[in-house]
Amino acid sequence: MDSFNSKIKDYCSKKNNQLCLGLDLDNRTLKDSSLSYYKDFIFDIIDYTIDMCPVYKINFAFFERLSSDGFKIIELISEKIGDKAIKIADAKRGDIGNSSKYYSEAILDSLNFDAITVSPYMGYDSVLPFCEDKSKGVFILCLTSNQGSNNFQNKIIEGDELYKHVAKFAVEMNSNNNIGLVVGATQKDKMLNLRQVSKNLPWLIPGVGHQGGSLDESIKISSKNDSIGIINVSRGILNYNNGTIKDIFEATKLYTEKIRGLL
Amino acid sequence: MDSFNSKIKDYCSKKNNQLCLGLDLDNRTLKDSSLSYYKDFIFDIIDYTIDMCPVYKINFAFFERLSSDGFKIIELISEKIGDKAIKIADAKRGDIGNSSKYYSEAILDSLNFDAITVSPYMGYDSVLPFCEDKSKGVFILCLTSNQGSNNFQNKIIEGDELYKHVAKFAVEMNSNNNIGLVVGATQKDKMLNLRQVSKNLPWLIPGVGHQGGSLDESIKISSKNDSIGIINVSRGILNYNNGTIKDIFEATKLYTEKIRGLL
Repeated sequence: MDSFNSKIKDYCSKKNNQLCLGLDLDNRTLKDSSLSYYKDFIFDIIDYTIDMCPVYKINFAFFERLSSDGFKIIELISEKIGDKAIKIADAKRGDIGNSSKYYSEAILDSLNFDAITVSPYMGYDSVLPFCEDKSKGVFILCLTSNQGSNNFQNKIIEGDELYKHVAKFAVEMNSNNNIGLVVGATQKDKMLNLRQVSKNLPWLIPGVGHQGGSLDESIKISSKNDSIGIINVSRGILNYNNGTIKDIFEATKLYTEKIRGLL
Repeated sequence: MDSFNSKIKDYCSKKNNQLCLGLDLDNRTLKDSSLSYYKDFIFDIIDYTIDMCPVYKINFAFFERLSSDGFKIIELISEKIGDKAIKIADAKRGDIGNSSKYYSEAILDSLNFDAITVSPYMGYDSVLPFCEDKSKGVFILCLTSNQGSNNFQNKIIEGDELYKHVAKFAVEMNSNNNIGLVVGATQKDKMLNLRQVSKNLPWLIPGVGHQGGSLDESIKISSKNDSIGIINVSRGILNYNNGTIKDIFEATKLYTEKIRGLL
């Protein structure tokens, strides 16, 4: 059984791409807001893009808003993608050990995602239950793309910013080769140093596109140390031109070509 | 419209109790693991305890494990409790602004919880969407009851531990009088000082019971500054004796009497 960090590299290498398409759609913005249309539209996006995309990210917030119906759609999306791409649950979970174990069962077992995003605030025993199966991955929030990242992540502890302590903590926990970091593309001044601290851990990189982060720098810096950066784009693809299925296909192709040009 | 922090005090005062019953049940541990039995058993617990308990906490991990069926049960529990007690969604969410807004819609609007637990790691814009409606509360993770709390929460930044920075941040964000903190009962040496830093913010206190925290100290210290501490007990009540409905009723009564003796 391959470890998650090998597996995600393999998927990227086979599709010659490092694009992660974030399926962050709000059904209320579609021309038909019914849940069946919503599900079908997402299925169409997957059909149109799966030959190009090695990774998809499902932001649970967009689906939980619809309660149990939304959870049902997450189940269907996970089944639909199957093993044709890596499926990341962007759920930002993290709790005391026995609760994290349940979240892990929920998301990595029942829903069969390949990886999950988790918050580091509660420490190692809140992260551990997610990484016991080496084929499943954990992306720990490290240096996020939003303004509030300044409140705590950049605070200095014993000479290093908190986010670097999180990176070191992640490296220490990586005995199964299945831990990565979330690193916002808007943080390019800090990326080079963070790549050194975070050794060869893969990065999941949001913030390219709508939030204005640099694709070029993100790919170049994250690829050092024989590692990899997965470029997440959500709104930058889903809202391209009029957001029709053809527009989404077109935008995915454009990002794919840009990324291939940098690899 | 009352602010959440006034509302939770009112509920506690009316029931002369500060007990929060954590409905952290695993259906696989019941004599019948079917979801209908699970739901009925939780409904029974609520019926038996609602005259005593001012607050219930639903740990989403236990229900998400059951995917959309679990989410359906959360919906039913929320309806069942209605406005007869304060309902806290122990979901530990937190994401960039637009995603946090969706989580807020999901949990505080669609599911109609009165409050939610959130992680502070991503900073103010990840917390803000949860506290815009002053009648809804936000408990920010501050000093948690687990061992991993040592990894980051106790690190010193400019002379103060990270958890104190989080407490100050929460005080600053409390303009709607609807923010509280999660403070583990296992952390009693740090509580007195934290009560000063956190001014009059209410505390949600897990860690009494199974995890061994002190009920006595938790109530005494959290009540200073004209504030309040809500004592969460989950396993300590649900697993009492044989965990039958009568045992759960008995344990709830015992905790209620202990708490009343301290008020």
